[in-house]
Amino acid sequence: MAPLRDGRTTTSEEMAATTRRPRLEFWFEYASTYSYPTAQRIERCADERGVEVTWRPFLLGPIFASQGWNDSPFNLYPAKGAYMWRDIERICAGYELAWRKPSAFPRSGLLAARLTVAASGESWMPDLVRAFYRANFVEDLDISDESVAGGVLAAVGQTAAPWLARARDDDVKQRLRGQTERAIRLGIFGAPSFIVDGELYWGNDRLAAALERAAAA
Amino acid sequence: MAPLRDGRTTTSEEMAATTRRPRLEFWFEYASTYSYPTAQRIERCADERGVEVTWRPFLLGPIFASQGWNDSPFNLYPAKGAYMWRDIERICAGYELAWRKPSAFPRSGLLAARLTVAASGESWMPDLVRAFYRANFVEDLDISDESVAGGVLAAVGQTAAPWLARARDDDVKQRLRGQTERAIRLGIFGAPSFIVDGELYWGNDRLAAALERAAAA
Repeated sequence: MAPLRDGRTTTSEEMAATTRRPRLEFWFEYASTYSYPTAQRIERCADERGVEVTWRPFLLGPIFASQGWNDSPFNLYPAKGAYMWRDIERICAGYELAWRKPSAFPRSGLLAARLTVAASGESWMPDLVRAFYRANFVEDLDISDESVAGGVLAAVGQTAAPWLARARDDDVKQRLRGQTERAIRLGIFGAPSFIVDGELYWGNDRLAAALERAAAA
Repeated sequence: MAPLRDGRTTTSEEMAATTRRPRLEFWFEYASTYSYPTAQRIERCADERGVEVTWRPFLLGPIFASQGWNDSPFNLYPAKGAYMWRDIERICAGYELAWRKPSAFPRSGLLAARLTVAASGESWMPDLVRAFYRANFVEDLDISDESVAGGVLAAVGQTAAPWLARARDDDVKQRLRGQTERAIRLGIFGAPSFIVDGELYWGNDRLAAALERAAAA
């Protein structure tokens, strides 16, 4: 039983009421440009609708590879890529969110995703997610580099070494692999994606609709 | 000079004020599912923002072919296709717009696009566009069939035969070809797309942002 502010402890009924808040799964890939504005705003938007966010890092690489793509579609299809770079700039400006086009794209999100899986039970995990996106898309840092990742961990108040070590655990690697396999089973093919009530929503621009559904459940 | 309701004629200044209404180009392809809800709602939405719509039919086929696709990406990439069919259903429900998944997809929009080009100076052209989309995505009719197209023309109050004949004119064919080439030069790679002020917006879900920019110009 968890202590309340007034010294009482919660009853099992109160606990159930808390856990009964509607849930939305947020599936994200650190290389994904459109996942960046979503990561920065999702907790605030979800709070406003009384919805709980479950953070689900995964890898798009294996999914793209299964479609015959060995690179981001934004690199493979230049017109689509040119549009995306302009569109994400406009979108971030609309949210008054800092944005800088990274000098390398896509950057591997593998290390950041493993660290996020390792930190999944920690209260600071959402801060870590936002800090990794800022590193990639605002500070133009190579998030696949261990020293950059260490800096991101430090920025959210964590000692880097033990977390970098945990990210190399087979258990963590296997959990991330399992998560990506689950994404495929859910029909996920891009990021960001949301799952609410078995329904899939794809794209930063679908967050409102996904939250609407979660709130109405 | 055009007569006004009170019998005066418009001055050149009044004409200029009319033509100075901000403009948005709406680029659409009849095979495109997401162009359907846009076509049905764009005039009402644009009116609300005081924006004039320029209707630009074009063909996605040549653009997809230049990317190495010989079919719709929704057929080539099954996960993306499965998502689109569910997403468009939800979107139309949100707009309280009729929707039926067509029994054949994609249907060639060539004949409908040629007829739209032929009718480009006519006041009923937007009605024709909406009627073709309804035929494809509500009535599940083969819009590439001349008798179906004739029925669509009749539904908007036109005698079919002369328009079907005009759609076969070299001039009309050439104008549609030129329009598709212009789409490529503008960086268009999908439908619906909007051009405002040299800026490209892609997708039904970007209509509000495109109108916002047009209204602010």
